[in-house]
Amino acid sequence: MSNPKLAITLGDPAGVGAETIVGAWSQNRVHQAARPFVVGCATVLRRAVDLLASELSVVEIDSAEEADPSPEVIPCLAAGGLRSDSIEPAVASAAGGQAAYDALKLATRLALDKSVDGIVTAPLNKAALHAAGHHYPGHTELLAEFCGVERTAMMLYLPPGVADVGPAGLGVVHVTLHISMRDALDQMTQERVLDRIQLADDALCRMVAHTADFSPRIGVCALNPHAGEEGLFGDEEQRVIAPAVERARSLGKQVEGPLPSDTLMVRAAAGEFDAVVAMYHDQGHIALKLLGMQRAVNVTLGLPVVRTSVAHGTAFDRAWQGTADSQGMVEAISTAAHLASVSRSESHQSDAVVRT
Amino acid sequence: MSNPKLAITLGDPAGVGAETIVGAWSQNRVHQAARPFVVGCATVLRRAVDLLASELSVVEIDSAEEADPSPEVIPCLAAGGLRSDSIEPAVASAAGGQAAYDALKLATRLALDKSVDGIVTAPLNKAALHAAGHHYPGHTELLAEFCGVERTAMMLYLPPGVADVGPAGLGVVHVTLHISMRDALDQMTQERVLDRIQLADDALCRMVAHTADFSPRIGVCALNPHAGEEGLFGDEEQRVIAPAVERARSLGKQVEGPLPSDTLMVRAAAGEFDAVVAMYHDQGHIALKLLGMQRAVNVTLGLPVVRTSVAHGTAFDRAWQGTADSQGMVEAISTAAHLASVSRSESHQSDAVVRT
Repeated sequence: MSNPKLAITLGDPAGVGAETIVGAWSQNRVHQAARPFVVGCATVLRRAVDLLASELSVVEIDSAEEADPSPEVIPCLAAGGLRSDSIEPAVASAAGGQAAYDALKLATRLALDKSVDGIVTAPLNKAALHAAGHHYPGHTELLAEFCGVERTAMMLYLPPGVADVGPAGLGVVHVTLHISMRDALDQMTQERVLDRIQLADDALCRMVAHTADFSPRIGVCALNPHAGEEGLFGDEEQRVIAPAVERARSLGKQVEGPLPSDTLMVRAAAGEFDAVVAMYHDQGHIALKLLGMQRAVNVTLGLPVVRTSVAHGTAFDRAWQGTADSQGMVEAISTAAHLASVSRSESHQSDAVVRT
Repeated sequence: MSNPKLAITLGDPAGVGAETIVGAWSQNRVHQAARPFVVGCATVLRRAVDLLASELSVVEIDSAEEADPSPEVIPCLAAGGLRSDSIEPAVASAAGGQAAYDALKLATRLALDKSVDGIVTAPLNKAALHAAGHHYPGHTELLAEFCGVERTAMMLYLPPGVADVGPAGLGVVHVTLHISMRDALDQMTQERVLDRIQLADDALCRMVAHTADFSPRIGVCALNPHAGEEGLFGDEEQRVIAPAVERARSLGKQVEGPLPSDTLMVRAAAGEFDAVVAMYHDQGHIALKLLGMQRAVNVTLGLPVVRTSVAHGTAFDRAWQGTADSQGMVEAISTAAHLASVSRSESHQSDAVVRT
């Protein structure tokens, strides 16, 4: 089978996206794993090529089918009617937000149409997105809307080789995400915790697709300090998390918890767990960003399409200075390519079953 | 001036405390900085000496004044009526909890009496403490009670040399501690946040006592993801934290915030801040334990006495196997010795002022 075709959105043209894509293009790993092309404004992409004094040529294409990438050529498919030429670097603007929105919408449609095997997104800026009239907290919620699904979860993923994580890498799946802590406490339900355990289990199985008997070791974070100290500091552990863990165990999952989140993260970093289920955004993000800010990959679980992203933001403080680190983009592309290959081979297998 | 005299509690005799103390005693840094002695059961301490095949002699003393420590001699002062000989290693028991309580109570009295210049505590086990009838979440709350103060805060401290923290080290001060997340949300007030900023500022100034013009760079964590995304995910940033930061700035403190906690922790680890104010237990603990589990020191702020502790627990899973890491104890002793020296020179200065 040929390498999976991936649509890489340019994100907000004012941010570090274009630089990280041009930087990643020079890595052999990218082309060994995927057939990528960019969705966004070719002028912006060329500006990044010039900034980085790269020899790459940006070739404008009219459809995903035309994309013929190589280490020397970045195919680029325009999205939306707006041109992004006039967008000021490193500043949030409605035009930048709209460009990011348009690129994501087109990339998602291509993935739903199966014109591509997966999507990788460069960062968007939320203030810019809102200025453009799109009131979403971020990519994850936009993707859920475009795909028409209600149940998604963000997994931050560290590939093997970061810290002492195990051979499957380390995935941290969030029970709640872009909501206030007060709402997070109200939205932590048994069903939601169980769902995230199952999503984590499924995602980590895909990370080691060729090991049929692999059962990810999943640690579930407590909400309260010291896991609630047996009910002294809150009852969510006993009332919500422990019953969800029990239900997951009865389904055959290898789950432990609720565990105090501070020591669980240390154990996970040492390779004792393949996945962690975090109750709220910062619980997972503090750990993963400390462990591998530049290499962490954001994977959206629960979508009908493969989608990964870098874990960092538009970084307006460093954008368009030619110093952006493209390692996160390389990992995001590699991870998407891997997940897309697994999905394709699963769908081949199910086609084969239908044919027999 | 002679080195500060420090009372080191043995903590729960079933835990790793005794081993870490014996291990730390062999480090020159300890004796170059302090005149330490142990408060607890000499039999337990001798057992650790034997376990580690150390040449140390444990000398029983009847008062703090008698303590004459050296790299070859551990003076040991008994606390409470109970002997700890019969306490089973690595198991929580009421007797172990009582022993830890008695040692802490005596050490605190010695510090309040100025018989010692500071206290360092080995870990206690909360289940054991509760079994002994003492219903406190931990050391910090017991110390507040013994000292008759209401306002204390836990600072987790990484000495210089861990990660890329700055020359003053990195202190993380907690606004709320051993309470449920629901209660933490209710107890986050402007006054409390401002108080913790001031405690952090004061504590970090003491860490670099000889730099008169040092102004610690303090980062204050947001509560909600993305610092509340301008009010979209909660209003505590605007309602509580930002006004407290403004008030601290008007008092001349070098403070930034509220900042998204995940990126703030990454910046602090890179040396951009000397102190971080965390809103709740896990926000601070996840970061500090990942950055330096074995070297982090727990410093209680707001007490009339100097008190530090190791950041790890009794570690019953590893206790009494002769494998405990004593680096945390060495750092806790060094940090207490440093803070005690600063306190003594401050009180000398104020005596001098009174005399003139």
